[in-house]
Amino acid sequence: MRWIRFSVEGKTAYGILEGERIIEVSGDPFNGYEQTTQTHALHAVKIELPLIPRTFYCAGLNYVSHVSGMAAAGVTKPNIPQKPDIGFRGNGGLVAHDEPVIIPSNATSSIQYEGELVVVIGKKVKHLSVENALSCVLGYTIGNDVSERTWQKSDRTNWRAKNCDTFNPMGPWIETNVDLDAMQTIIRLNGAEKTRFKTNDMLFGIATFISAMTRYMTLYPGDVIWMGTDGVPPDLKAGDVVEIEITGVGTLRNTFQAEAPFTVD
Amino acid sequence: MRWIRFSVEGKTAYGILEGERIIEVSGDPFNGYEQTTQTHALHAVKIELPLIPRTFYCAGLNYVSHVSGMAAAGVTKPNIPQKPDIGFRGNGGLVAHDEPVIIPSNATSSIQYEGELVVVIGKKVKHLSVENALSCVLGYTIGNDVSERTWQKSDRTNWRAKNCDTFNPMGPWIETNVDLDAMQTIIRLNGAEKTRFKTNDMLFGIATFISAMTRYMTLYPGDVIWMGTDGVPPDLKAGDVVEIEITGVGTLRNTFQAEAPFTVD
Repeated sequence: MRWIRFSVEGKTAYGILEGERIIEVSGDPFNGYEQTTQTHALHAVKIELPLIPRTFYCAGLNYVSHVSGMAAAGVTKPNIPQKPDIGFRGNGGLVAHDEPVIIPSNATSSIQYEGELVVVIGKKVKHLSVENALSCVLGYTIGNDVSERTWQKSDRTNWRAKNCDTFNPMGPWIETNVDLDAMQTIIRLNGAEKTRFKTNDMLFGIATFISAMTRYMTLYPGDVIWMGTDGVPPDLKAGDVVEIEITGVGTLRNTFQAEAPFTVD
Repeated sequence: MRWIRFSVEGKTAYGILEGERIIEVSGDPFNGYEQTTQTHALHAVKIELPLIPRTFYCAGLNYVSHVSGMAAAGVTKPNIPQKPDIGFRGNGGLVAHDEPVIIPSNATSSIQYEGELVVVIGKKVKHLSVENALSCVLGYTIGNDVSERTWQKSDRTNWRAKNCDTFNPMGPWIETNVDLDAMQTIIRLNGAEKTRFKTNDMLFGIATFISAMTRYMTLYPGDVIWMGTDGVPPDLKAGDVVEIEITGVGTLRNTFQAEAPFTVD
């Protein structure tokens, strides 16, 4: 099942996406819903963020060749994490499918994509075993963890490096029915494939993270966990179009733009 | 002006606190409000979190003697930050005034308080100068950034160290009218003063942080920024009562409790 959040004629709603057709619902996938008789063509709506997260968790450094590649580039240390240490982000950088990513005017040329599987939590849970951990998952969407690598080297907290306005595209929708082990993440730059990896080939898998997190922290409907990326991406520039496909989920597409001139108030 | 969020008879609302009397409002301080004719005695309501943050930002390492003291204790490195690098937390650890802080059963004895001034943002802003930065502030509340120091040494992201369920008490209310330079932070353990520092004696002040953040990130009504703490606190144990007073704002009080036995599902 595919949950889409969309706007049409000034109204935002959730719907169930079947092929290219949206069945509008009242309510939402977290608190309950009813199907309406209203339908829309996918091409006739604006796709919105699939949800505004309650908490935005991120795994980071969760694929072996990304850790070694970032270390070789001098961005991070060559340390493979020994346990699943979850991180946090703010919601301010989130943008939807097809919304632009704005490159700050003082960024260097080292702006890169990171294609990530995003886990959407559907239930309030604590103390889940690894075996039962996935029972709290509503579904999966896609994230692009846009990163400025020089700031990643100098900022103690990755705040500019990974959380500038528009640096966290997420979408296009939430797919509830997936085969994690069959998934591939395929990233295209201006239509040409640049990165491909097995999505579930993580250092610490989704169930391991959720079980570890819920020893200490309650997870809530609407929390999201970004699971990290593999490989070393190319540098991007204004005008580039990045498409992140995760097989069985969909394709998240965003165009990069230069920041417009601004004045400081 | 003091904004309080409270529950009474199963209903949660905002009110304006005058002395010990609450004037209930409809609406809220962020999107507009109207005073109602309903009033309540402060002692007759449950004080709730003053807001559910849109984004939970935290400054960290923002007072000189806290940085040196934590380095002497082997918790963090002896590096004074050279620029205002803002961090992020999840909302899951937030609890209100007078709600208990639960010490996880596998925590060490090195559980400590951190008394912090919390800035509450009231306007959507970007690109603010240092001079105009405080124009976006609605008011100030108080945070207790409860920290488990052994986990702080071992966790890459401070997730257990500082964001376990109940580790982030915030309240009791939002004061809009303050004299930052006159403020003192006074922390009492079981009634005895243990810590006192000049609240505004920060490495990077509130205006500096907001100006730096808004070069890259839009701030929104309901965002909060926890400004860090000074000194080296004592270890706490179940039964302890911690009161964090910030003069001109109020006193945030929470009791520490041991975690109850639990089963893993």
